[in-house]
Amino acid sequence: MLKTVIVGASGYTGAELTKMVHLHPELVLSGLYVSENSADANTPISDLHGSLKGLVDLPLQPLKDIASVAKSADVVFLATAHEVSHDIAPTFLAEGCKVFDLSGAFRVQSDSFYTDYYGFAHQHGEWLEKAVYGLAEWNDKAIATADLIAVPGCYPTASQLALKPLIDAGLLDLNQWPVINAVSGVSGAGRKASMTNSFCEVSLHAYGVFTHRHQPEIAAHLGCDVIFTPHLGNFKRGILATITAKLADDVDVDQVTDVLTAAYADKVFVRPLGAGQSAKLQSVQNTGFCDIGWSVSGQHIILTSAIDNLLKGAASQAMQCVNIRFGFPVLTAIV
Amino acid sequence: MLKTVIVGASGYTGAELTKMVHLHPELVLSGLYVSENSADANTPISDLHGSLKGLVDLPLQPLKDIASVAKSADVVFLATAHEVSHDIAPTFLAEGCKVFDLSGAFRVQSDSFYTDYYGFAHQHGEWLEKAVYGLAEWNDKAIATADLIAVPGCYPTASQLALKPLIDAGLLDLNQWPVINAVSGVSGAGRKASMTNSFCEVSLHAYGVFTHRHQPEIAAHLGCDVIFTPHLGNFKRGILATITAKLADDVDVDQVTDVLTAAYADKVFVRPLGAGQSAKLQSVQNTGFCDIGWSVSGQHIILTSAIDNLLKGAASQAMQCVNIRFGFPVLTAIV
Amino acid sequence: MLKTVIVGASGYTGAELTKMVHLHPELVLSGLYVSENSADANTPISDLHGSLKGLVDLPLQPLKDIASVAKSADVVFLATAHEVSHDIAPTFLAEGCKVFDLSGAFRVQSDSFYTDYYGFAHQHGEWLEKAVYGLAEWNDKAIATADLIAVPGCYPTASQLALKPLIDAGLLDLNQWPVINAVSGVSGAGRKASMTNSFCEVSLHAYGVFTHRHQPEIAAHLGCDVIFTPHLGNFKRGILATITAKLADDVDVDQVTDVLTAAYADKVFVRPLGAGQSAKLQSVQNTGFCDIGWSVSGQHIILTSAIDNLLKGAASQAMQCVNIRFGFPVLTAIV
Amino acid sequence: MLKTVIVGASGYTGAELTKMVHLHPELVLSGLYVSENSADANTPISDLHGSLKGLVDLPLQPLKDIASVAKSADVVFLATAHEVSHDIAPTFLAEGCKVFDLSGAFRVQSDSFYTDYYGFAHQHGEWLEKAVYGLAEWNDKAIATADLIAVPGCYPTASQLALKPLIDAGLLDLNQWPVINAVSGVSGAGRKASMTNSFCEVSLHAYGVFTHRHQPEIAAHLGCDVIFTPHLGNFKRGILATITAKLADDVDVDQVTDVLTAAYADKVFVRPLGAGQSAKLQSVQNTGFCDIGWSVSGQHIILTSAIDNLLKGAASQAMQCVNIRFGFPVLTAIV
Repeated sequence: MLKTVIVGASGYTGAELTKMVHLHPELVLSGLYVSENSADANTPISDLHGSLKGLVDLPLQPLKDIASVAKSADVVFLATAHEVSHDIAPTFLAEGCKVFDLSGAFRVQSDSFYTDYYGFAHQHGEWLEKAVYGLAEWNDKAIATADLIAVPGCYPTASQLALKPLIDAGLLDLNQWPVINAVSGVSGAGRKASMTNSFCEVSLHAYGVFTHRHQPEIAAHLGCDVIFTPHLGNFKRGILATITAKLADDVDVDQVTDVLTAAYADKVFVRPLGAGQSAKLQSVQNTGFCDIGWSVSGQHIILTSAIDNLLKGAASQAMQCVNIRFGFPVLTAIV
Repeated sequence: MLKTVIVGASGYTGAELTKMVHLHPELVLSGLYVSENSADANTPISDLHGSLKGLVDLPLQPLKDIASVAKSADVVFLATAHEVSHDIAPTFLAEGCKVFDLSGAFRVQSDSFYTDYYGFAHQHGEWLEKAVYGLAEWNDKAIATADLIAVPGCYPTASQLALKPLIDAGLLDLNQWPVINAVSGVSGAGRKASMTNSFCEVSLHAYGVFTHRHQPEIAAHLGCDVIFTPHLGNFKRGILATITAKLADDVDVDQVTDVLTAAYADKVFVRPLGAGQSAKLQSVQNTGFCDIGWSVSGQHIILTSAIDNLLKGAASQAMQCVNIRFGFPVLTAIV
Repeated sequence: MLKTVIVGASGYTGAELTKMVHLHPELVLSGLYVSENSADANTPISDLHGSLKGLVDLPLQPLKDIASVAKSADVVFLATAHEVSHDIAPTFLAEGCKVFDLSGAFRVQSDSFYTDYYGFAHQHGEWLEKAVYGLAEWNDKAIATADLIAVPGCYPTASQLALKPLIDAGLLDLNQWPVINAVSGVSGAGRKASMTNSFCEVSLHAYGVFTHRHQPEIAAHLGCDVIFTPHLGNFKRGILATITAKLADDVDVDQVTDVLTAAYADKVFVRPLGAGQSAKLQSVQNTGFCDIGWSVSGQHIILTSAIDNLLKGAASQAMQCVNIRFGFPVLTAIV
Repeated sequence: MLKTVIVGASGYTGAELTKMVHLHPELVLSGLYVSENSADANTPISDLHGSLKGLVDLPLQPLKDIASVAKSADVVFLATAHEVSHDIAPTFLAEGCKVFDLSGAFRVQSDSFYTDYYGFAHQHGEWLEKAVYGLAEWNDKAIATADLIAVPGCYPTASQLALKPLIDAGLLDLNQWPVINAVSGVSGAGRKASMTNSFCEVSLHAYGVFTHRHQPEIAAHLGCDVIFTPHLGNFKRGILATITAKLADDVDVDQVTDVLTAAYADKVFVRPLGAGQSAKLQSVQNTGFCDIGWSVSGQHIILTSAIDNLLKGAASQAMQCVNIRFGFPVLTAIV
């Protein structure tokens, strides 16, 4: 049994991780942590997330002596702010923990990425270099031996799982930048009081137009430019990405279908739905799946990709990485 | 044209009032005010409430010199916190304004009501005594000559409009306290950032069980005890009250129907739906109507009463009172 | 491994059962059935319920030769219409299957119940007599040896779990009928096209006032009269019941708390939240839990009880009964 | 007073039209009609649309003798199926009625459009030629003298109002087809029972990918190719279109802002929000406004355009056309 701690356990992703660790037969939940000054410190997690009551009633402990926590942990999930992950991951790593970081702190191996998009200068270049990007279906070999896994963002997961097979196979004409329109549930904004998330203020709209930091994450890992427009939708969880792109000359729908089907033939958590199908949010909400549909007309392709932002876009992908890293069966604690 | 100011215009009720005053042919909107320290001060109201853009783009002015504002106003709507209304209404009244207060500050003519339920000692007993309760269908004669109208709360409006005709006609056995279960949309909690109102946290639940201050308001004006249980529902606006009561001996459904139908025969904003019908939220959302349905079985009656909490439960009832007070046609600016 | 078939698998409850049977280590899913003339016949269940894709892609077979299906089955779930369950359960039972019926066909041991509330004369009195009411926390001993388990309705589950301990302990004054106001998600109306369930028509309202057939089910099993008013809410799943009752003389909140806490001390799926707490829909959605809160004031008590209508109100309670019947651990396939 | 009839009054658009005609000081509602075999025939419209109760309780009459209805009408709204509008409009026109058709039957002056996208051969070429496309802000001169106004579709309205000024000014590089991603509320699918619209089945997804008939409508009226992907959203009303396009060489954001601002400077129902702003559904729901926001980065522009699909996308745009046609003030019956 691997002793497991979750830092940043009070949020929605933290609660999902907590439940999965609780269900995992090879992990034991040894501690839930929040920042030292959190208003939630010392509160049972089940007071914040009522669905956990009776399952996990552990308190959210204020994280003070990180090294001491690290010494008694084998597996660490960081569901923390980017800056916090950046600051504390090295301490856990130094003690030999395997760290699964759900923030953006180690996702892109470029110093300027952090100064440009996250507003801080990265101080841990050696770890940034060693970090493995946890896009589970694509990086499993590297994940299997990594100490630090940078779990991808929610939008980047939905976007890359649809586009990557086609780009790698050369089926797209990338001179025309793929257009990714994505709508996320409100839980993507985190668990906090704000006017933006206020029930009466939520209604479908675009935000972060041309400026959202998931754009460079997607572009960096796909190796091409994309236009990415995130939207807030009036639902609690899930992401639907609709992607419009131009096909390379003479590419037809059968080639697209072959490539997408083959890419995920043995990847249980990605479900290619077939040509002419489109992904539906409801089919993936509360699951670890990514559904992908596609249609072709002339030189254009429209792909739809749906995930649960808190699961495949965060917690369950992190757990996939755990299962890969330690050789546990892929479905463990997820289905 | 009556010069009209709205204090507390930044909230949901304030925005509804703003639109109605804008549409009213006999009122001219001379100023929108927020508290002196409001973060919204000097912002155009249409930046907060996008639907008003192009209709009303007046700034929300910080309310500093109340007497000066009062001097140039004929009609004042107070969509302010209870304590604020309590403090500032007398200044407006002293200058001869007609004041329509949407808070609880002048609703119940009992000092202990304020110390017990609102946490402050009422300082303006003379005005409390003169204030007229603005339940428009029942108090129109008094409203027509009043200087200070205390517009009822949202739950009390839905509850009283259903119960009052039956109680006044002696059709209920009040030894068994009527049970009022009501569900309100989230806008009832006001326009503010809070975890309670956070999109991902809202789900149907009871709150303020046995302790909500609308219970004594209802009981005081009906003249009998009631059990009132408010709930938060996952919708933006509207209230549905389901009321269970015991009938007096030998009362049958026809008597109930006769009384309810007669009570509102010439009251356009209350729509008795008939025996066996039940009120539906959607029929009243975004309208100034109250729908009432009822069913009888043996000695019990179940009434359902639906309103838009921001309109018949606040802004449009206030406008009804204005129309009554100044002799304007009843529908003006409401339908 | 017990060979398990689900009849009526195309609906929402059927889909939940399908997933649970798939996950259950002691059950093997040997067939999914729909009625012979169903438009869904021969369609993979995952075409109707996209979340099952890749997990269970079995076709929905038209149920023709019931005896033949029965011969090769050990466990049968009937998620069928009342009349259908009534007609086919005996055939399965005759072949020695253990039958878990989620309809109302065998819930109340009174012939008139069926003629009065279900519109048909019960033809299988012997089975009606042998059937065990599957309120899992209260009837586990009888369930453990039963051949036919009548899984309770959704509203009756939420209502009885809150009221039964208090009634059994004599804490309520039943001369005043308990008032149960309950709001259900739309999935309770089943998976079918209808104006009532149409997205744009759904808004909070009461239905079946004084006439819903869950009222006599609740009354029969509690042994007392109740007033039950169901409502349709604008959410997909879940039930919240708010129950107002009169306490017997001299009963105080501590007695209530003691009784409710003791009743469920060793019952993992019912979570008494404590005095002053109220149940919240979100805490039980997508779970097998029932949360119960209560508050007392003077002679009155208000209880709130929340379940997922498709799980604790149907599928997971059926699975609880399976686990009890065959001695499997209580959490199996549910948590 | 112009005698006004609404055909197809039972639907959501019909109900909106009914309310607006009722409020219009120059129109008198002389009849509401449904198809001869409609299940709603002879039902008061307020039984179907509860919000109208007490305002308009006219029955929905079965439309039998069209010529007779036409003889006594001045203004006719057709909120009917495309084929029905196609068949009956000429009869109304022959009697001298001014016809405002909300279907697609006269929107595109090309016979093949109807065979290709609507599945019928157009029989009324002369009227098709005379029909004026009712995009109110752009065709007001032609509308002012037209007998037959073809009110645009909902998606085409949102799309064209954003794109048309830029295309007309030559600011876009149309070699790269503009990508229109739009999300509509469920009311866009009409008032009918269907699994697609069933409350529990609705969740965000794309539909009609590459095949929706609003694509050729948009393309025909803009005079250029576009990629249009409609989505169903989990809300009752509203459309948000997010449009990504390539700018022509050397076009910058200020030119875009100038063109959009100038285009609608004297058009009250289109609100250009400014550069860097994005349109929000809530600001236009239940209003006749179209909000447009835009952002530019390098050679790309992203526009967002929001309308209420039942109002600016149907009923209020039809009423704008009435006001233009008869010279009534623009806001009449809309604000």
